[in-house]
Amino acid sequence: MSNQEKLTKLFDILNEAKAYRRSIGKLEFDLQCCAPSDGMEQAGEDMAVLGKKLFELTHSEEYAKLISELYENPEGLTPVQKRAVECLFDRFEKTKNISPELSFEIESAVNKAYGKWLSAKEAKDFSLFKGSLADIVKYTRKTVELQDRDYGTFYNACLDDYEKGGNESQLDGFFTALKARIVPLLAKIVREGKTIREDFLTRKCAISKQEEFSRYLLELQGMKMSATVLMATEHPFTTNFGPQDVRVTTHYYEDNFISNIFSTLHEGGHALFMQNEPDEFYKNHNSDNMSNAMHECISRFYENIIGRSPEFISFVYPKLMEIMGDDFNDVSETELYEAVNIAKPSLIRTEADELSYSLHVLIRYEIEKALVNGEIKVEDVPKLWNNKYKEYLGVEVPDDAQGCLQDVHWTSGFGYFPSYALGNAYGAQILISMEKDFDVFAEVKKGNLKAVLDWLKENVFSIASMLNPDEWIKEITGESLNPDYYLDYLEKKYTKIYNLD
Amino acid sequence: MSNQEKLTKLFDILNEAKAYRRSIGKLEFDLQCCAPSDGMEQAGEDMAVLGKKLFELTHSEEYAKLISELYENPEGLTPVQKRAVECLFDRFEKTKNISPELSFEIESAVNKAYGKWLSAKEAKDFSLFKGSLADIVKYTRKTVELQDRDYGTFYNACLDDYEKGGNESQLDGFFTALKARIVPLLAKIVREGKTIREDFLTRKCAISKQEEFSRYLLELQGMKMSATVLMATEHPFTTNFGPQDVRVTTHYYEDNFISNIFSTLHEGGHALFMQNEPDEFYKNHNSDNMSNAMHECISRFYENIIGRSPEFISFVYPKLMEIMGDDFNDVSETELYEAVNIAKPSLIRTEADELSYSLHVLIRYEIEKALVNGEIKVEDVPKLWNNKYKEYLGVEVPDDAQGCLQDVHWTSGFGYFPSYALGNAYGAQILISMEKDFDVFAEVKKGNLKAVLDWLKENVFSIASMLNPDEWIKEITGESLNPDYYLDYLEKKYTKIYNLD
Repeated sequence: MSNQEKLTKLFDILNEAKAYRRSIGKLEFDLQCCAPSDGMEQAGEDMAVLGKKLFELTHSEEYAKLISELYENPEGLTPVQKRAVECLFDRFEKTKNISPELSFEIESAVNKAYGKWLSAKEAKDFSLFKGSLADIVKYTRKTVELQDRDYGTFYNACLDDYEKGGNESQLDGFFTALKARIVPLLAKIVREGKTIREDFLTRKCAISKQEEFSRYLLELQGMKMSATVLMATEHPFTTNFGPQDVRVTTHYYEDNFISNIFSTLHEGGHALFMQNEPDEFYKNHNSDNMSNAMHECISRFYENIIGRSPEFISFVYPKLMEIMGDDFNDVSETELYEAVNIAKPSLIRTEADELSYSLHVLIRYEIEKALVNGEIKVEDVPKLWNNKYKEYLGVEVPDDAQGCLQDVHWTSGFGYFPSYALGNAYGAQILISMEKDFDVFAEVKKGNLKAVLDWLKENVFSIASMLNPDEWIKEITGESLNPDYYLDYLEKKYTKIYNLD
Repeated sequence: MSNQEKLTKLFDILNEAKAYRRSIGKLEFDLQCCAPSDGMEQAGEDMAVLGKKLFELTHSEEYAKLISELYENPEGLTPVQKRAVECLFDRFEKTKNISPELSFEIESAVNKAYGKWLSAKEAKDFSLFKGSLADIVKYTRKTVELQDRDYGTFYNACLDDYEKGGNESQLDGFFTALKARIVPLLAKIVREGKTIREDFLTRKCAISKQEEFSRYLLELQGMKMSATVLMATEHPFTTNFGPQDVRVTTHYYEDNFISNIFSTLHEGGHALFMQNEPDEFYKNHNSDNMSNAMHECISRFYENIIGRSPEFISFVYPKLMEIMGDDFNDVSETELYEAVNIAKPSLIRTEADELSYSLHVLIRYEIEKALVNGEIKVEDVPKLWNNKYKEYLGVEVPDDAQGCLQDVHWTSGFGYFPSYALGNAYGAQILISMEKDFDVFAEVKKGNLKAVLDWLKENVFSIASMLNPDEWIKEITGESLNPDYYLDYLEKKYTKIYNLD
């Protein structure tokens, strides 16, 4: 069989698998956005039926053979196809020794952990989740042990899933740098910072108005509206059924209109990435191959670097006032800008401000690393968590629901959290390069977000799925990840807002 | 293999098939209610992938063998299981000689016909749809010819798909009876009927208010709200993913609040039927075995017999006024009742009133019967259509879009239309039986629709999937379908409203 014939055969399998994956994804979307509660159990069973078929498709001997042979000899493949095969091979190698039985065992442990986590959070009692967390740690280590590769530590293997080539020593350095400058900056704001007006942040705002403003924001960002929908859900997410169907969800709180604005910009950032990869990526099965930190980089770039800039607020302020009617006309543009940038130590990551956010991530990083590497036991988690919140953020954790049970992530595994902080730092570093090419905030102030999107398409989206993170950031900015850009950005921004000079 | 083992094997296949059917149904729901337009083509391809798998599951040799053997020897099966096997066997027998190739050929002709119909309707030009309609007639006749059964006429075979045991001669008698009394009654209203106030029917009404009232109506009908959702769509429908997940859709028109009210009651009726079959039906694969006319009977019972009664209007009037605020407070209860019962000859079936509705159906019945039986050619359809509208309803058809292109049904086949008129007549006949057991409209006037639902559960839903239509209506009312009840009901109602005495 020629290489082209092999590739055709492989892509036939992958195309069928993709149809299943999209279908399962839409069932999941349906569960989050449409389905009645009584129908959820049945939907889960249906997803399992399709999931079984998907598993068979990508675990057949034929599939393994095609992948391995094309990986060994990629002659005649285009660079995009070659990259696709490399990533598929990598994923296959990681899981090839996991038996179907173990795979289903893990899936059911994950499902169980999710249920336990929900009850534990509801009861504010970590002990109800402890056993499940121990299971997740156990299965995580087991799947690493089954690999033919040596990652040095268990946690390095987790990182490799989300941030190819990432490792603990690099991340230790990264987070140490963050801690060294963010902790004192935040403390200084608490001590010396001016008081910012915030009374209007909890003022009632009709959901229909928030929805109208969300649509305006997505259009402003440059979303192709015929290829997206905006829907309401409990926990906002963005999902992708190919570049022709990228969906954004958000959550509306009547007494917190700000939350929805930045959630929309964030999810809109993810969606723009999904809509704007080069056409040939999706059809050559090379569109899921960027790292998670690359994705968070873009979403947080739109949410924070653009969205929380004075220029962006200046541009959208008149539109916001127009939609809100008289309800907010006592709020000036400057007051709005300052209010969306209030920095204060807090308990909940998802509600954290731009400055303290990475400290929340740091805490999770330190704990999950120790957990996976076997340096601590699951029962140590709550105390460690609470101590670190006291040390880095200066806050007392009143209960586990507002503490170590607040995030869902550990119900399915470890290694994702660092993506958030890495994304922040990538974004600030990329901004420097963008600014060399054009006056970014002058364009933002005119509402020309197309300039930003065009630049990202050309310089960022076009190569993200082709390269590993280190290669990618070097290609864009000329150097490896350097947290100083991010820390400089934060210091400059917050010193000004809080009159700290 | 014992019969129980055979049944277990059969149900394993059917359970897997059901998972696929529900999944495809949810993808279809997604297309109608959520998906962005650019994503539709891809979604269609994904549905085809799942559809292929579904086809394989229910067309395997093993499946055929199990069905046939259990049909021949149903020993040990419960009555519900026996009925399930009989219906599955019947459906299998009808399609067993259709090759996969022909099946896909038909599917693609149906898809093409839908596209052609859309363009033809847009262009108001039947000639653009003519070729596709001829294809649908051709494939309809072909699939009948491939059956080992003799139905007497081609159209009888179509009727058998929707209304088991129905045939032309029975329907000819039925529709002749309807024509004989409805045509003159409608003409009399036009000549002698009083004028009913209707100015407020096109008054603007916020969609959020309509939505609130719709939810109120569904709850009033007795829907289990944790097992349903209400969503907006272009063409309202109800869909069923098992009794735990029955979905209602509606369409809101800002300048026609009445439309949504009766659409909701209608779809709510379908949904109540789906939610309230006995539990053992769904899990024994015996819940799709009622006829379509039985379903339309219930939906139209709630929409018209209950929904357009003075007692129902009297009960919901205060709630409607409360939700609408001051916008409609110049409309009295009687004016509302009369306005929702205005009878006037019109062009469009879906907008027709309760009285003239069955005449629209009659016209379609006469034309599709002649078409399928080869008595007329497709090119004759527009002229025939227009002549019949002139003759029965007294209206001139200005163009094909408002004429023979108005309904989507003929893009996929024939035989469904009679269900609507049969449903109307079943409903009026069932009402007589219901009234023998309790004072129906006294309860409706108190808002006690639970009494209606309980009666329907016990007497109608509990046996619908178990019996063919004639057995069913006899079991409920003691006699075969008799259109006189329906015609008496209409004459009494409209004589009173229009002061015709």
